[in-house]
Amino acid sequence: MYQQPIFEGRTIMTPGPVEAHPAVLRQMVQPILGQFDPEFLKIMDEVKEMIKVPFGTTNKQAFAIDGTSRSGLEAGLIALIEPGDKVLVPAYGRFAYLLGEICERAQADVVYLEKEWDSPFIQADVIAAIKEHQPKLVAMVHGETANAQMQPLDQIGAFCRENDVFFFVDMVATYGGIELKVDEWKVDVAVAGTQKCVSAPSGMSLITYNDRVEQFIEARYQKELGLGSDERSDRFVSSNYLDLTQLQRYWGPERINHHTEATSMVYALHEALRLMLLEGIENVHARHAKNDRILTESMEKMGLEIYGARETKMGTVIPILIPAGIDGEEVRSLLLDQFKIEIASSFGSLKGKIWRVGNMGYSSRQTNVLHFLSAFETVLKKVGYEFDYGAGSTYALEEYLK
Amino acid sequence: MYQQPIFEGRTIMTPGPVEAHPAVLRQMVQPILGQFDPEFLKIMDEVKEMIKVPFGTTNKQAFAIDGTSRSGLEAGLIALIEPGDKVLVPAYGRFAYLLGEICERAQADVVYLEKEWDSPFIQADVIAAIKEHQPKLVAMVHGETANAQMQPLDQIGAFCRENDVFFFVDMVATYGGIELKVDEWKVDVAVAGTQKCVSAPSGMSLITYNDRVEQFIEARYQKELGLGSDERSDRFVSSNYLDLTQLQRYWGPERINHHTEATSMVYALHEALRLMLLEGIENVHARHAKNDRILTESMEKMGLEIYGARETKMGTVIPILIPAGIDGEEVRSLLLDQFKIEIASSFGSLKGKIWRVGNMGYSSRQTNVLHFLSAFETVLKKVGYEFDYGAGSTYALEEYLK
Repeated sequence: MYQQPIFEGRTIMTPGPVEAHPAVLRQMVQPILGQFDPEFLKIMDEVKEMIKVPFGTTNKQAFAIDGTSRSGLEAGLIALIEPGDKVLVPAYGRFAYLLGEICERAQADVVYLEKEWDSPFIQADVIAAIKEHQPKLVAMVHGETANAQMQPLDQIGAFCRENDVFFFVDMVATYGGIELKVDEWKVDVAVAGTQKCVSAPSGMSLITYNDRVEQFIEARYQKELGLGSDERSDRFVSSNYLDLTQLQRYWGPERINHHTEATSMVYALHEALRLMLLEGIENVHARHAKNDRILTESMEKMGLEIYGARETKMGTVIPILIPAGIDGEEVRSLLLDQFKIEIASSFGSLKGKIWRVGNMGYSSRQTNVLHFLSAFETVLKKVGYEFDYGAGSTYALEEYLK
Repeated sequence: MYQQPIFEGRTIMTPGPVEAHPAVLRQMVQPILGQFDPEFLKIMDEVKEMIKVPFGTTNKQAFAIDGTSRSGLEAGLIALIEPGDKVLVPAYGRFAYLLGEICERAQADVVYLEKEWDSPFIQADVIAAIKEHQPKLVAMVHGETANAQMQPLDQIGAFCRENDVFFFVDMVATYGGIELKVDEWKVDVAVAGTQKCVSAPSGMSLITYNDRVEQFIEARYQKELGLGSDERSDRFVSSNYLDLTQLQRYWGPERINHHTEATSMVYALHEALRLMLLEGIENVHARHAKNDRILTESMEKMGLEIYGARETKMGTVIPILIPAGIDGEEVRSLLLDQFKIEIASSFGSLKGKIWRVGNMGYSSRQTNVLHFLSAFETVLKKVGYEFDYGAGSTYALEEYLK
């Protein structure tokens, strides 16, 4: 017979999923409400408004999608793409290739602009590529979790707007941790998720898009046959589940019956966003920035090297070069098995070369940083890394005591 | 400032979403585990095995998908469909048209076989249509929630197998409430969800498929570009998020990093399936059958008429014809607003003609049935329906006291 698992908590210092806020988890125990129950509709409407704040937008359209972050990426991309459309994907890390993968499966003609992963693009280079390739859509990642670099977006956004190109940005790794300015940067579609700085469990994606996108996708709306055959489009979106034109009508006043909403996850999301606004979004960003600084400086006190360009390092991940002669996976295993602390490895060309320490959401707090640094020093000493033992953890403690 | 909602529970007697079991909801408060954490992998492996039991299968492949039920329907269908493929959709209710909608968006050539919604197909009629149209795939609904009719599948399945046609069945409304025999009926792909008889929140879909399907989709596997460009296919599945060939490799020994699993929902699913097996799957089915009989007979004692053919009525929904002169929506509103009891209306041609009372999962229990019947009688009397007041509720009580 199967047993109820006994859970031992983790200190999760990865770039997601991170620890969910206990108050957020507690909301998931609330009784089920039907998806059209008036009390649930009120929660949905509040969620729509709250989602906009960390995005830095006053867009009319902002809602959640029942799937992990990449469900929102796919929904946003396929709403814009029709077969043969040209898409420019500037890639300075792993997740840009996910965007390209999604676009290729939607039968887009994808052009990759590639560079080393140690820094983002100079915006002028992306603009030059847009001029050269004349895409319908530019799809980029704001913060790359794989290498912890962050892309400046304002000039690219402005150029796209002036030239009637759609600008799609994956903000999964920065939403709720770093100040976003979707409107000011002229981002047309932005996507995030619940499992990183939002401090809720994985399983939902957040999306916002502007009037320009809403007008474009309007012609692609097709009412589902099960609800009637009176509104068809010959430009229908390729997926029914991830069809933004239907999702928008579920979250909007039309309240079409598109799917059975994951109401428990919406309760969690409501509480997570509410706690963020209660703390104050500026304070949330400042907390992440402070913990990022202390983590990064502590690593340097331990003689460790931070990967990539410093001025464009994303504040929600600290990428640490694994010192010569040290087995990165052994360190991760000792941390997880003995201390119940999780940090991440990386992908692609960085696999085995860097550790990634996350600094996200509820996990971005003093207790976690201090516990992690003490444990990390102990484990590094155990595996034979030579450094000034205690230099990182005592530095961090002094900083918090200031 | 937004407030934490105050939840008042509901007695949910709809055909889904229904009440989640309190023990299932409590599991969602457990701390987050990373998706590759050894403790989480153990939970996943147990879930894979437990999913198979209510399906009645020994298939190797059975797992959950991070999305509501229709995400699994879409994943299963698009894994089999390539542009231009012919799909036969026999439709005796609303949800068949959802299957058709998904197939059309996947560029299939869809042939609908249609009939009145008051009964399912005579199997020979479907077989005749298969002979006529020679489809690659037959997609059907086992239990139609819109009209509460249930389709016999065994002869269709046998014919499909003999003639090398794929047989896809939506079992969302019957899984966990009615005995399923996926293997015996020769169903190639079967799909269910968490929000009905599983008694967990909405947000996950369950899927199983046999070796025949696994072999077919193998050639369509395409490794995501973010993980490497060494395994491409020119027959790739149209969606990345809902790509079964990747999902199978996430749930299997390869453990590819396809998405960030909704671990909290998996905890809930584990507990829901565990409770089902603890009760005994035969006992679970018997409980649903008993409550269905008592609900149905009680309605008749109240002079109400049950919609559709009785011998093929699905045991998880009771469809009641709204008596002449009664406003169906007024009854539903009084039940919800005054008693916090939810029942459903219906779709399409049955909209405004029937109420649907659900009998699913944790909501399928004596307390709910008795509370609902008493309230229903009170409300029907209030709106002027003439009947032998008390006849339904006292009959039900006597039956439970036997």
